[in-house]
Amino acid sequence: MPTKIPGYDYGSVVHSPVLMNHLRSLEQAADFSEEDVKWLRAAGPVLASQAERIVDSWRTRIADHPDMMRVFFGPNGEPDDSYKAAVKKRFVQWVVDSCERPHDQQWLDYQDEIGKRHTPAKKNAAEHTYTPPVVPLRFLIAFSAVVATTIRPFLESSGRDASEIQRMQDAWTKSMLLQLALWSRPYVSETLW
Amino acid sequence: MPTKIPGYDYGSVVHSPVLMNHLRSLEQAADFSEEDVKWLRAAGPVLASQAERIVDSWRTRIADHPDMMRVFFGPNGEPDDSYKAAVKKRFVQWVVDSCERPHDQQWLDYQDEIGKRHTPAKKNAAEHTYTPPVVPLRFLIAFSAVVATTIRPFLESSGRDASEIQRMQDAWTKSMLLQLALWSRPYVSETLW
Repeated sequence: MPTKIPGYDYGSVVHSPVLMNHLRSLEQAADFSEEDVKWLRAAGPVLASQAERIVDSWRTRIADHPDMMRVFFGPNGEPDDSYKAAVKKRFVQWVVDSCERPHDQQWLDYQDEIGKRHTPAKKNAAEHTYTPPVVPLRFLIAFSAVVATTIRPFLESSGRDASEIQRMQDAWTKSMLLQLALWSRPYVSETLW
Repeated sequence: MPTKIPGYDYGSVVHSPVLMNHLRSLEQAADFSEEDVKWLRAAGPVLASQAERIVDSWRTRIADHPDMMRVFFGPNGEPDDSYKAAVKKRFVQWVVDSCERPHDQQWLDYQDEIGKRHTPAKKNAAEHTYTPPVVPLRFLIAFSAVVATTIRPFLESSGRDASEIQRMQDAWTKSMLLQLALWSRPYVSETLW
């Protein structure tokens, strides 16, 4: 049993206002199917064993980007290292969860929680920190391009053949963009979401 | 010289409120580089010759999705076929533009125009139609998974080797998500975008 990750409240957050039938509609929009679930499960152990390295590679890119890096800054204008470290553990767990968790009510609820933790609704709440109140939506979307396109070498280390790697990557991209659609909810008014 | 596409106002729309340096920051966030420009240019002729078939394949998926299909409905509850046809021509052109247009001020301006045309700011304006006033952001994001993952077979018809196809696909995915980040602007308040 792994140590509990602070602030990782999977299974114990409030219900998402998004209903399960809305999730199914979104899954269909993203063409996320049972086939994708199968390939995510196949990718799970491969990515789980490298999850920290994967997140480190993303964090390096964020550190090189002054506008994105700012979301970690405390009131003194310096990175809040304890916030950064706490969020990183959940980010690593997110890689694993994206492959392994079924898309049930708990999953749906936690997607909304993740979205809120990027907006004034709940950013800083888990660690009682004073970093900027939002990860701007434009960076969340733009950076998803990195999350989609940099996963491939990590999948290739599985030694699977190219067509299987491709299916795992497609499933990863669909899962990530489906989640991004759910995370965008607290950013926009109900009529536009 | 191709026939002018009705409502395709590239080069003659108002300036985007997004500045060029913000675009460069977003490009960096998406890891969109000169290398990606090169691979998009390589993909251009391959995708341009199939652009209508590509959009048809996406339209088929939208037609199978009741919630997405609704964005084309007129007040009588039936698809507005002339609106659908007009938008389709611009969608086909978008495939070509994504590969071929440089990311200059005109491009930036037109991205904002595309965003507005998905929201109450300008949806229906080009054709003076009465379809629903918004393409919900969640569907725009979720469907981007389809736009990212279904381009591969069209790229493969170029006969290029697998590593080149992969670079073209990555460049396509980055370009598309960068654009999606720009399109999201009219959906959200300035402080959250």
